[in-house]
Amino acid sequence: MKKTVRPEIPRKTIYRLSVYLRCLHRLRQNGLSTVRSEALANAAGVKPTQLRKDLTYFGQFGTRGLGYDVEQLAGMISDLLGTNRLQPVVLVGVGNLGTALLSYRGFEQEGFEIVAAFDAEPDRERDKPIPVPIYPMDRIGRVVRDKGVRMAIIAVPATAAQTVANALVEAGIGGILNFSPAMLTVPDTVTVNSVNLAIELENLSYFIQQ
Amino acid sequence: MKKTVRPEIPRKTIYRLSVYLRCLHRLRQNGLSTVRSEALANAAGVKPTQLRKDLTYFGQFGTRGLGYDVEQLAGMISDLLGTNRLQPVVLVGVGNLGTALLSYRGFEQEGFEIVAAFDAEPDRERDKPIPVPIYPMDRIGRVVRDKGVRMAIIAVPATAAQTVANALVEAGIGGILNFSPAMLTVPDTVTVNSVNLAIELENLSYFIQQ
Repeated sequence: MKKTVRPEIPRKTIYRLSVYLRCLHRLRQNGLSTVRSEALANAAGVKPTQLRKDLTYFGQFGTRGLGYDVEQLAGMISDLLGTNRLQPVVLVGVGNLGTALLSYRGFEQEGFEIVAAFDAEPDRERDKPIPVPIYPMDRIGRVVRDKGVRMAIIAVPATAAQTVANALVEAGIGGILNFSPAMLTVPDTVTVNSVNLAIELENLSYFIQQ
Repeated sequence: MKKTVRPEIPRKTIYRLSVYLRCLHRLRQNGLSTVRSEALANAAGVKPTQLRKDLTYFGQFGTRGLGYDVEQLAGMISDLLGTNRLQPVVLVGVGNLGTALLSYRGFEQEGFEIVAAFDAEPDRERDKPIPVPIYPMDRIGRVVRDKGVRMAIIAVPATAAQTVANALVEAGIGGILNFSPAMLTVPDTVTVNSVNLAIELENLSYFIQQ
């Protein structure tokens, strides 16, 4: 693996940078060109000290008294996140959830484009037209390599998830967004973010009893 | 609000307890009646010290040398999470994502039952049959109270999310799973867990560049 000179930033900080980026986009839409750290922190729902600490990864660039340049800060965060250009993504599993994800308009808006889908039954008739080609599972390697894709979404049942993850990793995928309830085993060089809907509900379940 | 005697457990710990519970269910399915902390920690992907620390909320009950009683520990975690009986949940927003969530079989399995849905266009023709009644938005208050529901899932567009959240809180909902990209403002007594798909992808985007 190529050694990187990028700073080691904790995952939590990266999440917050995404939130700051959204706030900055909104400020820009509202015609604002600078923002004070207190106002940005407030919009993002964090403490000003947290915001300032998170932004130290970019070095000193706020102008005291004036605050941050909205355009400049948004650009720096986008550069860091790698969302300054459209990122190709593949989706594996075109069931109910997969179909919903394919028609989710939010992705492209945020810099992600689902370029291909894979399914165990690619030719099965679906309730609605699918806007991308659906390939059989054994084409994962070729399609991912041909299109230079580094990110994948897994929306298959738990029983199939590890096999799919193996094929994706083998094909060169570096980041997986996992919607299956399975716990995936991947090499250290691959990042998995899991969205487990049942666990989210269970977590709420605890808090509503308080 | 009634004062509780339940321990104050951090949200992160609650997430891990959910994961332990899943591992324990799997062990039970495989016919095991006891498990050592090292084995359970390994199955859950955490360090044994972390597991033991998390379980101190339940007091001392492991038998040294024998490990934990699978059935007993699963029961204690379920009790704490409040998932030892079927929890009713309402869903607001029956679009693509909402429809996918309604047909997601994982919820019931984990102790959650979507009992009603709400939509701005309840009578709109949908691609597939919806297994629960769909009510107009102005019925949220009555249905939630009649059915004694405490948890809700929001799957409406960002622009409608805060209005929906207000109606849910007003109706007595204590926990909201928010799939809209909006940042919701709710009273301190209400818990919101947000699943923002674009932010998850952005997070991965950073890590695949490393």
